Amino acid sequence: MIHIVAKNSVKREQVETFKVLAKELILKSKEEEGCIAYDLYEDMNNPTVLNFIEIWSDEEAIERHNKSEHFKKIVPKLAKLVENKEVRLYKKVPVNLKTD
Amino acid sequence: MIHIVAKNSVKREQVETFKVLAKELILKSKEEEGCIAYDLYEDMNNPTVLNFIEIWSDEEAIERHNKSEHFKKIVPKLAKLVENKEVRLYKKVPVNLKTD
Repeated sequence: MIHIVAKNSVKREQVETFKVLAKELILKSKEEEGCIAYDLYEDMNNPTVLNFIEIWSDEEAIERHNKSEHFKKIVPKLAKLVENKEVRLYKKVPVNLKTD
Repeated sequence: MIHIVAKNSVKREQVETFKVLAKELILKSKEEEGCIAYDLYEDMNNPTVLNFIEIWSDEEAIERHNKSEHFKKIVPKLAKLVENKEVRLYKKVPVNLKTD
């Protein structure tokens, strides 16, 4: 499983437009094979910071997602609404580490 | 529900120590009332970036967590191992927004 945290600092006057476009991206992405979770989260201390937190089964699913019609249509539109964005891929660190 | 993304840029030589301390924090936090998820994630492109991604039932649970013995014991130790950290609280944006 791979987690993606895609953090967007959205232009203040574009926040509602961003959310409407994000809705379409979320609903279509959740239908994709390998999509375990895909939701938008608002920073409780700054409503212009909006994160997608996504969970994917594997890298192949992410590659398919990045080539999907809805991704190619919506993500460039979202990009025009943000001041900056940061996308990071994470894998879970197992807690059964040796400690001694 | 509240999501916390706590992003740590860990000093390169302290990554393994950070993971061992994080393990104890994760195991004890997961036993807390109101803790829905609490795990550590490693940036797939930079193993010194380690995020806690947490899900809590409500703000009261987070307040209890911040006052817990394991939090007060371990978090200051983790803080000494990082170059910088950023903690943000998020709430999910509902997708049943009006679109017209």
